[in-house]
Amino acid sequence: MPRYKLFIEYDGTGLVGWQRQKNGLSVQAILETAVERYCGAEVTVHGAGRTDAGVHASGQVAHFDLPREADPEEIRGALNHHVRPHAVAVLVVDRAAATFHARLSARERRYRYRILNRRAPPALDRHRVWHVGPPLDLEAMQEGAGYLIGKHDFSTFRDALCQAKSPVKTLDVLEIARAGDEIVIEARARSFLHHQVRNMVGTLKLVGIGQWAAARIQRALEQRDRRAGGPTAPPQGLCLMEVSYAP
Amino acid sequence: MPRYKLFIEYDGTGLVGWQRQKNGLSVQAILETAVERYCGAEVTVHGAGRTDAGVHASGQVAHFDLPREADPEEIRGALNHHVRPHAVAVLVVDRAAATFHARLSARERRYRYRILNRRAPPALDRHRVWHVGPPLDLEAMQEGAGYLIGKHDFSTFRDALCQAKSPVKTLDVLEIARAGDEIVIEARARSFLHHQVRNMVGTLKLVGIGQWAAARIQRALEQRDRRAGGPTAPPQGLCLMEVSYAP
Repeated sequence: MPRYKLFIEYDGTGLVGWQRQKNGLSVQAILETAVERYCGAEVTVHGAGRTDAGVHASGQVAHFDLPREADPEEIRGALNHHVRPHAVAVLVVDRAAATFHARLSARERRYRYRILNRRAPPALDRHRVWHVGPPLDLEAMQEGAGYLIGKHDFSTFRDALCQAKSPVKTLDVLEIARAGDEIVIEARARSFLHHQVRNMVGTLKLVGIGQWAAARIQRALEQRDRRAGGPTAPPQGLCLMEVSYAP
Repeated sequence: MPRYKLFIEYDGTGLVGWQRQKNGLSVQAILETAVERYCGAEVTVHGAGRTDAGVHASGQVAHFDLPREADPEEIRGALNHHVRPHAVAVLVVDRAAATFHARLSARERRYRYRILNRRAPPALDRHRVWHVGPPLDLEAMQEGAGYLIGKHDFSTFRDALCQAKSPVKTLDVLEIARAGDEIVIEARARSFLHHQVRNMVGTLKLVGIGQWAAARIQRALEQRDRRAGGPTAPPQGLCLMEVSYAP
């Protein structure tokens, strides 16, 4: 069975997230239905990152097997036709090796979190940003982020539902920059715990508004207890930007 | 009666445009209703640019008169409360001179038109871009745009419903650049004819896909006849970015 790799963009608004669920529509179900409409095959589409309800992706990667060889351009056109009217787009389809696995082969995931930091609420990007009215202290947030970079037990930022075997992860990048009236946070790691990015962002926001000193991030991390961390930032500010694989 | 100046952002999706109309909800009606809910006064909110249905704004400017003095910050907070749940946000409120008029005093309007130029349809920005699948020739479009810059009779790019007294306008800037898989067109002028930006963009697209030679733009302009121009680009790619006034 030939295997195909997909690059996918989606707007997570109104969806239950990547993973197929009984209580609503998922990106996975939209894509699996599109494959079935295209060629009649009931396939499983395996995604690299299980994004939560309301979380977006501009660079999700997935794979699936087809019963027969098909032209990647034909697959792409057919899937984009059959996913309508949902806000899901298949950007690229590539033929993949039988050993390629979108989730297990991934070397790095890159997420971006956008905070709109101004008094007025968002109008144009209301489903794409977290609105934080009080001015955020960028330098304090950057100092706080510094304590999180590297290999740590991230239990403080791990959701109770997380299925990962170990809470130890290596956070390669956690960059925070100002772009106009936005604070943009970029996080890179081989993999993340469930809600890890949103829990880190929700905690860094406490530093940004001055409720926490930056150094408290380190103490919270060392406690390895979710109750020591800040709240979970809302999903709509988060976007899975890119998944990287070995060449 | 004290006059106030507003800076406004809105998502035009599903609205009939800036101007109050009988057939649907307008940005003007949303704001006038918000003012009435705030202070009981029935006012007219005058906008700088009459954006079409589906067109967005990140920097629309408007003015209105209140029966009494009020704190600009209080007005802004109250209007943002009362415009809910619509995708309209009042970014800034300033006290203005009695001689200030959002439309008549404007020195320059800046519009941006975004074309998503890739095979796959948009998912994240589906209401914010015009999707053009075939690759666009940026240099040919830039050459074509060059013929439009300056003072001309723009009848070829003027909608039949246009109420301007003269079809002669001075186009100060028409810049086209690539940004990732987007082609971004920026237009600046003291004022524009009805549909002028969308008609210019729809015609430049014909140059971009190779259906027109760039020089045909000049001949079309010289004919001063709407039938000589290309089709009107769809509204959702257009955004009013900024309105400038004398200092």
